[in-house]
Amino acid sequence: METEKKYASVHYAKYLQLDKVMGAQHLRSVELGKPAHDEMLFIIIHQVYELWFKQIVHELVSVAEMFDTDKVEERNIGISVSRFDRVIEIQRVMIDQVRVLETMTPLDFLDFRNFLIPASGFQSFQFRKMELLLGLKKQDRLTYNQKPYSSVFSDSEQKELEAMENGLSLTDLIEKWLERTPFLELDGFNFLDEYRKAVKNMHDKEKASIRETSFISEEERAIRLKMLAGTESYFDEVFDEKKHIEAQESGSIKMSYKATIAALLINLYRDEPILRMPYELLRKLVDVDETFTTWRYRHAQMVLRMLGKKTGTGGSSGHDYLKSTTEKHHVFRDLHNISTLLIPRSELPVLPDKLKRELGFYITSKK
Amino acid sequence: METEKKYASVHYAKYLQLDKVMGAQHLRSVELGKPAHDEMLFIIIHQVYELWFKQIVHELVSVAEMFDTDKVEERNIGISVSRFDRVIEIQRVMIDQVRVLETMTPLDFLDFRNFLIPASGFQSFQFRKMELLLGLKKQDRLTYNQKPYSSVFSDSEQKELEAMENGLSLTDLIEKWLERTPFLELDGFNFLDEYRKAVKNMHDKEKASIRETSFISEEERAIRLKMLAGTESYFDEVFDEKKHIEAQESGSIKMSYKATIAALLINLYRDEPILRMPYELLRKLVDVDETFTTWRYRHAQMVLRMLGKKTGTGGSSGHDYLKSTTEKHHVFRDLHNISTLLIPRSELPVLPDKLKRELGFYITSKK
Amino acid sequence: METEKKYASVHYAKYLQLDKVMGAQHLRSVELGKPAHDEMLFIIIHQVYELWFKQIVHELVSVAEMFDTDKVEERNIGISVSRFDRVIEIQRVMIDQVRVLETMTPLDFLDFRNFLIPASGFQSFQFRKMELLLGLKKQDRLTYNQKPYSSVFSDSEQKELEAMENGLSLTDLIEKWLERTPFLELDGFNFLDEYRKAVKNMHDKEKASIRETSFISEEERAIRLKMLAGTESYFDEVFDEKKHIEAQESGSIKMSYKATIAALLINLYRDEPILRMPYELLRKLVDVDETFTTWRYRHAQMVLRMLGKKTGTGGSSGHDYLKSTTEKHHVFRDLHNISTLLIPRSELPVLPDKLKRELGFYITSKK
Amino acid sequence: METEKKYASVHYAKYLQLDKVMGAQHLRSVELGKPAHDEMLFIIIHQVYELWFKQIVHELVSVAEMFDTDKVEERNIGISVSRFDRVIEIQRVMIDQVRVLETMTPLDFLDFRNFLIPASGFQSFQFRKMELLLGLKKQDRLTYNQKPYSSVFSDSEQKELEAMENGLSLTDLIEKWLERTPFLELDGFNFLDEYRKAVKNMHDKEKASIRETSFISEEERAIRLKMLAGTESYFDEVFDEKKHIEAQESGSIKMSYKATIAALLINLYRDEPILRMPYELLRKLVDVDETFTTWRYRHAQMVLRMLGKKTGTGGSSGHDYLKSTTEKHHVFRDLHNISTLLIPRSELPVLPDKLKRELGFYITSKK
Repeated sequence: METEKKYASVHYAKYLQLDKVMGAQHLRSVELGKPAHDEMLFIIIHQVYELWFKQIVHELVSVAEMFDTDKVEERNIGISVSRFDRVIEIQRVMIDQVRVLETMTPLDFLDFRNFLIPASGFQSFQFRKMELLLGLKKQDRLTYNQKPYSSVFSDSEQKELEAMENGLSLTDLIEKWLERTPFLELDGFNFLDEYRKAVKNMHDKEKASIRETSFISEEERAIRLKMLAGTESYFDEVFDEKKHIEAQESGSIKMSYKATIAALLINLYRDEPILRMPYELLRKLVDVDETFTTWRYRHAQMVLRMLGKKTGTGGSSGHDYLKSTTEKHHVFRDLHNISTLLIPRSELPVLPDKLKRELGFYITSKK
Repeated sequence: METEKKYASVHYAKYLQLDKVMGAQHLRSVELGKPAHDEMLFIIIHQVYELWFKQIVHELVSVAEMFDTDKVEERNIGISVSRFDRVIEIQRVMIDQVRVLETMTPLDFLDFRNFLIPASGFQSFQFRKMELLLGLKKQDRLTYNQKPYSSVFSDSEQKELEAMENGLSLTDLIEKWLERTPFLELDGFNFLDEYRKAVKNMHDKEKASIRETSFISEEERAIRLKMLAGTESYFDEVFDEKKHIEAQESGSIKMSYKATIAALLINLYRDEPILRMPYELLRKLVDVDETFTTWRYRHAQMVLRMLGKKTGTGGSSGHDYLKSTTEKHHVFRDLHNISTLLIPRSELPVLPDKLKRELGFYITSKK
Repeated sequence: METEKKYASVHYAKYLQLDKVMGAQHLRSVELGKPAHDEMLFIIIHQVYELWFKQIVHELVSVAEMFDTDKVEERNIGISVSRFDRVIEIQRVMIDQVRVLETMTPLDFLDFRNFLIPASGFQSFQFRKMELLLGLKKQDRLTYNQKPYSSVFSDSEQKELEAMENGLSLTDLIEKWLERTPFLELDGFNFLDEYRKAVKNMHDKEKASIRETSFISEEERAIRLKMLAGTESYFDEVFDEKKHIEAQESGSIKMSYKATIAALLINLYRDEPILRMPYELLRKLVDVDETFTTWRYRHAQMVLRMLGKKTGTGGSSGHDYLKSTTEKHHVFRDLHNISTLLIPRSELPVLPDKLKRELGFYITSKK
Repeated sequence: METEKKYASVHYAKYLQLDKVMGAQHLRSVELGKPAHDEMLFIIIHQVYELWFKQIVHELVSVAEMFDTDKVEERNIGISVSRFDRVIEIQRVMIDQVRVLETMTPLDFLDFRNFLIPASGFQSFQFRKMELLLGLKKQDRLTYNQKPYSSVFSDSEQKELEAMENGLSLTDLIEKWLERTPFLELDGFNFLDEYRKAVKNMHDKEKASIRETSFISEEERAIRLKMLAGTESYFDEVFDEKKHIEAQESGSIKMSYKATIAALLINLYRDEPILRMPYELLRKLVDVDETFTTWRYRHAQMVLRMLGKKTGTGGSSGHDYLKSTTEKHHVFRDLHNISTLLIPRSELPVLPDKLKRELGFYITSKK
């Protein structure tokens, strides 16, 4: 039986179930006796988007499963990085694909737009799953037409979304993984203390230097001191856990203090072999976030172009809503903001030799 | 002498003046004895951007010259479309190129960032020329650090910018060209009257239909009526020149009434041979605007990623400023908004046969 | 009834038949109890490709219908250009999408490759339709595994392909349209005669000039004369219909003499308003061909990367076959080769004023 | 002095030496009194390409320096991967940029083409450096016009190229690094022996299975057995060092036996933490090679489009030469071909637990 299955002669069209996929383009304009050439594109491109969403969900779920454990296997970090790489390549295609839809002109769209009310991309289930897996929380969502985003779905779909909302998202899992980072206090090296000293030292040197230099203009001296003062204030939150917690409470920061420190450490010492893949992972998360946001932005632009100031088929200004999401629906913004806290390599606290060796591979360290 | 010049044996490197171009990468980090590998990329990518800006300026100037006349030659519209096509391809490359710069990580940037103060992309002269040629006016600019944008340039550069500001931009020239469109009243066909009737007729039919239909839910009836009401109000400005002028005075519209009507006509009847290239031209302007805006957006994202909340080398938050320009520095937004006024082809006033023939080619019409 | 249909409340998921599309991913590896994560990508990306193929077929069929007439409407040329523009944007996405598949590594592919035998992209029906519509003829196809390409399809599919093969492809229809071009002999202006004179004149001047110049090196004189001689021989076929027919018989040229001359004329005088859109059409055909070929090339590269020298699931070396198709399955190569026959604008025969006026629009010419 | 330098007020235009870069566009057509609008693009795009070449050279040199040692530091592998990532993003831009040049039509090119003889991209010095750094050897180069490729350069340039040719390229350095891989025989695990057994075992099982299965068609049985036989023969070279050396002598393989085995091991066990970055490195080399080849291909296409069958300005058929280089000037083809030797993970020899632990990080292994 098994063998029979295994050696079943597989045909391309059957394997890909092309009868289903290629038979799923039913033009409303044809049904209503007013065939509109461009409706085919409208259907097909949305189906393509949905397929890509499904693929992204498949990747995100697989990564979430690898991180849903007390001890993430080293090898799984590498695998996760590869999967995010794939997600990013798909997102790049999703962005470029907007250009295909833009070959449909606003006038062409009007040929069938009226037949689609009230369908709307707002009703994409895969898209919501994608957002939830990444970690977009209900309370951080913009409301649209004064209704919860999930109200457009069936009961079973709503339940599935709710379960995901209550489960752990990638944001949560990555945070927990960061919090478990064993490198914050190692062999007598206290990262935060050393970092604090380095930052203070760097700023003091810089300030003295700016003040003493006689030949720079007062305007420029002012610019430089202003930049420095600004920079110093960002560091305060890192040096003072209380301030961080206040920022969390006010909503301006989401990530926990410990995870933030760990992400900072990984960014600063990413050249140590053991931190290389963790660093790549954090970087890919920032890429995913940025590329997703670019897609949202291009989507909003396309809607503006198609409709001008007209109301969307869903009954609200699509463009304004979509554009706001580029700002509000960032999920990994805290990782983005780690950049603020970086200091030049030349100012980095030097790792003790023994520690440095231990951050390498077993085989390498043995020697 | 001429022949000598003509048959001068041309060498690739000399022709391209590669000695100059390839000798123009002077790393501050090397000069200061702290070589930073990534500074080379930083220099080269900015030089590449400047070269592309220069090319875009070259194209825009050539189009402006073709439109700076009382009677634009038919053939020049086709040529202008090709040149905008080129501008758009360059812009696409400029957008994708951001990814190259993003391979430089924030930590790598810190290795030499301090050596560049107070240099800033804000000081790009080519970029300002590009904006002025497109039609960005002084009064519509965001201010940055409370100073006029031109204060960072030399006297002669300031004068050149001022001259451009006082001269005619593409926005002005296109507006004038639109205003001269001879098709608004032709052979007894008054476009605006016919269009007004068609819109009213369309809305009346639609409203009646929505009200009479018994089986749609009240919620949906409301959505549909709301969409319709919204749409009707957009049309008011077109039907009433006074309202248009008010909107111009308030700043929400820039383009003149007559040019707006002409752009609308061209969009609606673009399938008539004589309107095809004018339509393509309007479409390309929207493309240029949209792609330029996308570039601004990607640029802003990249700065956020590089600096987090840090102050830019110019002394201000680069990201916030750049992001605001995506919203405010649109130049062809009125052309974008023509979409609002389009009506389906099935509702379009039918052109009289004679007129239709006249909108074709001479050779075709003769027969 | 009609109204009921019209106001049916349309839901996104139902409209797009997402139950079918999203339910069409059946992993063989899961069925056989050896789940391979990457099989999902393999299925989805192929489905996406098939959807794009279907869209391209939709566009090509619509253009073919517009050209399947004795007199192509002027407006339809503009519409065709837009549809080819769309095809090209889709092809660009198809090319970039190869990168998504390349995120699947060869080792990952091996996890399920054995379960797919003998399925192969060779069995894509949509792809064959696309090739046939463009104009790829049976006799010009490479054979693969010594069998006709259609042998892998069902009887009804084979019949459909045969009917297409016997019908008119875009290559045929464009050729017929070119042959009907009315501009080859107009108002006493015989294009071919004038062109012949211009070419001869240009070459004579050039030759004399090269010979007389004393200061260029003998090597360079030789290069220039060799270039010139080469160029002259290309022109022979155009000046002599018999040679053209011989070339057609030998298979090196496909397009008829008359169509070739017309394509040349359109390319040379494309700035005349009436020739602008015909020129754009010819250009888009070259774009479609080039982009399609790039896709074939990238596809071949990807197969090489995935399999190295292994035999494809279809039982033959996929890479070698695919790479050969980039060379052999060009359909618009004759249009590409028109470039050989172009001469600089400065050498172009000047059109008589009257003719020039007649190549413009009726309204413009009247004045 | 140092401080003075450090706090020198840096201006954007001066820092980027824009006077040089933006002053390096000297149009021959303008000089000769026949201004051709498109010559500006021709110059600028070539300058942009040269700048990108310089950047790629900068990256390749830096990697070569890191590998030119007896013991490559672990951290440098990660850094190299990032640099290749940058090279790949640049190459992607270089490929997309061809589209910008293609907005220049063949007729537009003719307006100034004659003024450029005999300049040719063949004279790009940066490009040759790039090829040499990657590892393209003199004996593997196609000849062009029967002269050594370096004959077009100045004496000092020729010397520089010769020195590079005699020095170590990335191909050489990577080969040496692979040969030093310490994992081929570790703690009693002999990789090659175990791999040989696994392959044989896999093939035997498969053959038996194919033969015994009664229900598959004879045709398919034949396909499967043919695939298998083909596969077996590829493995012979790996199992038998003599055959490998023969293949090297015949020129079909370049990489040494030991390096090949190491590359195979790294590919198969890439999920072990210590092999992750080495694997990424090998993968990036394949990417660089593939993307470079795509660029060559697009370049060749563009030349065909521009010139048809005309002779290039360098005096030979540019297109044919360029297309051949896509086939012949691959440098990392042996790494590509590793794919042939991969076996499914389910058939991989299992690593002893102790070894597996040792392939992880020190800190992880300690526990």
